[in-house]
Amino acid sequence: MKKFFNNVDEILTESLSGFNDAHNDIIEVKFKPDFVARKQKSPQPKVALISGGGSGHEPLHGGFVGYGMLDAACPGQVFSAPTPDQMEAAAKHVNSGKGILFIVKNYSGDIMNFEMGADMLNIEHQNIIVNDDVAVEDSTFTTGRRGVAGTMIIEKTVGSLAETGASLDECKKFGDHVNKMTASMGVAFTSCTVPAAGKPTFDIGSEEMEFGVGIHGEPGRKREKIKSANEIASELMGAILEDLQPRTNEEVLLHINGFGGTPLMELYLLFNSSRKILEQKNIKISRSLVGNFTTSLDMAGGSITVTKLDKDIIDHWDSPVHTAALRWKI
Amino acid sequence: MKKFFNNVDEILTESLSGFNDAHNDIIEVKFKPDFVARKQKSPQPKVALISGGGSGHEPLHGGFVGYGMLDAACPGQVFSAPTPDQMEAAAKHVNSGKGILFIVKNYSGDIMNFEMGADMLNIEHQNIIVNDDVAVEDSTFTTGRRGVAGTMIIEKTVGSLAETGASLDECKKFGDHVNKMTASMGVAFTSCTVPAAGKPTFDIGSEEMEFGVGIHGEPGRKREKIKSANEIASELMGAILEDLQPRTNEEVLLHINGFGGTPLMELYLLFNSSRKILEQKNIKISRSLVGNFTTSLDMAGGSITVTKLDKDIIDHWDSPVHTAALRWKI
Repeated sequence: MKKFFNNVDEILTESLSGFNDAHNDIIEVKFKPDFVARKQKSPQPKVALISGGGSGHEPLHGGFVGYGMLDAACPGQVFSAPTPDQMEAAAKHVNSGKGILFIVKNYSGDIMNFEMGADMLNIEHQNIIVNDDVAVEDSTFTTGRRGVAGTMIIEKTVGSLAETGASLDECKKFGDHVNKMTASMGVAFTSCTVPAAGKPTFDIGSEEMEFGVGIHGEPGRKREKIKSANEIASELMGAILEDLQPRTNEEVLLHINGFGGTPLMELYLLFNSSRKILEQKNIKISRSLVGNFTTSLDMAGGSITVTKLDKDIIDHWDSPVHTAALRWKI
Repeated sequence: MKKFFNNVDEILTESLSGFNDAHNDIIEVKFKPDFVARKQKSPQPKVALISGGGSGHEPLHGGFVGYGMLDAACPGQVFSAPTPDQMEAAAKHVNSGKGILFIVKNYSGDIMNFEMGADMLNIEHQNIIVNDDVAVEDSTFTTGRRGVAGTMIIEKTVGSLAETGASLDECKKFGDHVNKMTASMGVAFTSCTVPAAGKPTFDIGSEEMEFGVGIHGEPGRKREKIKSANEIASELMGAILEDLQPRTNEEVLLHINGFGGTPLMELYLLFNSSRKILEQKNIKISRSLVGNFTTSLDMAGGSITVTKLDKDIIDHWDSPVHTAALRWKI
C-alpha cells in the first residue's frame, strides 16, 4: 500500500498526534475518546459548535477548529462515523453554558451516533444536518441527500455568528438557512484507497469518470467517459443551479474543492470553466475558494459548490477565522 | 488522461485565468508574456522579489505572490523553465527603484533563462540560487543540488525582510543565509503525469518507492521497497541532519511537504514520525508547516524540510503574509 504509515491500526492516532503538534498554538487533540478542541477558549460564553465524521476528508473537520469556526471536531476511523462517547466528551469539554450546536453531514451512521452522543448529555443542543450534494437522493450510506463540500461553508459562517454571542436558536436557524442556499456536486476520475482495506474502494476504467460521486466513493448519477473540463463544469453546474434557482445578478460564493489526488493547477482550471458558465447566466461570483478542503483520501477529481449570498452570509464568510486550514484577517 | 482540462495546449493559460479570478484581491495575472504580480504595490520603494519556474508545483510560486512574500512569479509550461521575456516583463512591472532579487531553484534551464532575462534589464539585480535538496549532487536537470520545498521558506523570510525596506544586498545576503540553513529530501510512491506527455513520467513497481526523488520525478539515491513512515522519516532526516549539523537544543522549522497525491492525514503522520526523531536528538521544533506547498502534479509522496532558526529567521517567518496559499496575521 503506497501510503505513509507504520501500522494500519495506528494511522488515525499517529496522524492526530502530528496534527496536535503541528498546530499546538490553535488546537489540542484529546485521545480516548478522540476529539480536537480549540485551545483558546472564548472569554465570553458562546454557543459551542461541534462537527465530526469519518476521517479521510482532511482538513475537514479538525482543520476547521479554531477562532471563528468550530469549537471541536470528532474524527471517526477512516470513512466511519465517530462514536457517541467522542461527541459526549467533546461537548462536555467545550460547553460554556450557551448550548451545543452539532453540525452533521447527512449520513445515517453519523446522524445516529451524533444523536446518541447528544442523548448522553444534559446540555441544551441542536443539530444542523448538512445535505448539499444534489447528485442523488439516497445513497450507499445515506437516506436523502449527502453532506459534502458545502459543510465547511456552514461551519465558517455559523462559527462566525456564534462568536458574536448569538443564541443557540439563532445559530441553528442561520445554519439551516446557509445549508438551503448551498448546493454541490462532484466527479471522480479514480477511486480512493481506505488504509484498512488496502485496495481501491471501487474499480473504474482508464477513460471513465463517476459523475456525481460521493466523498466516500459512493456511486453518483452515472459512469461515463471523461469529458472536457468545460463539459464537466457545465453538467455539474446545471444540476447545482437547477437546485438553487439563483436570480439574475444574484451574488454567489463559488467553491472548487479537490478530492485529494488532483493538482491545484487543474482545480483553478475547473474554477475558470465554472466561472464562465456563471457569467454567461449573469450570476455574480463575489466570493471564491479553490483547494483541497473536503477530500476523499487520494481520490482524483473534485466538486463544485455554490452558495447563494445575502448580506449575513457575506459578513460571516468575510469575518476573521483562525484555524489550521483556513486563516484570514488574523 | 484523468485530468480536468479542455485542450492540452491551453491548460496553463486557463489555470492562470482561474487563479487570477479566484484571487483578484491579492494578485493579477498578466499574459503574453505570462507572470503573476502583486495587486497592491508597496507605498514605499522596496526590493522586488521575483521567483518562477516550471508550472506543476502549485501553489509554488504564484500562490506566494502578495504582501510579505513575492512581488511576482513567472510560470513556465509544466516542468519547463519560464522564458527570459517573462522575467524581463515581470521585473519592469514590479521594479520600484530598489533593485530586483530573483529567487531561482537550481535547475540549469531556470538559471540560464533567469540570467538571460536579467541581462535584458537595465535594473540592478541579484540572484538567490536555492539548492536545499540533499538527495543528490547533479541530477537530470541540474548541476549541483536541486532546489525544492525549502524555496518557499526563503521566499517567506526574504519577502518579509524586503518589506522592512532592506537593501538589495541585505536581502541577497539573508536569502543565501536561509538557503544554507535549509535542507530537504523526499520520497515518491508514484510517478506524476505531465499533461503534454499524457503518461506517467517514470515507471515504478507497486511496492516500490523512489528515495530522494526530485520534484519533476528525477531519480534520487535509490529505488527500493516501501518502508514504514518511521523508517522513511529516519532515513530522510538522517541525510538532512548530516548536511545541517544542528547543535543540541537548536531550534528548527520542520516542514512536511506533500507532492500532491498524498492525503493530508498521511502528511501529519509523517510529521509525527519526523518530530519523534528530532526530539530524540534534542533538536527543538519551534515552528512547523504541513501541507501541499511544493507539489509535483499528482505524484504521491512527500518531503521533509528542516531550517535551522535564528532570531532573524524566526521574526521573518512569523511576520504577516497575505498570499493565495499562505496567509497569517492579516
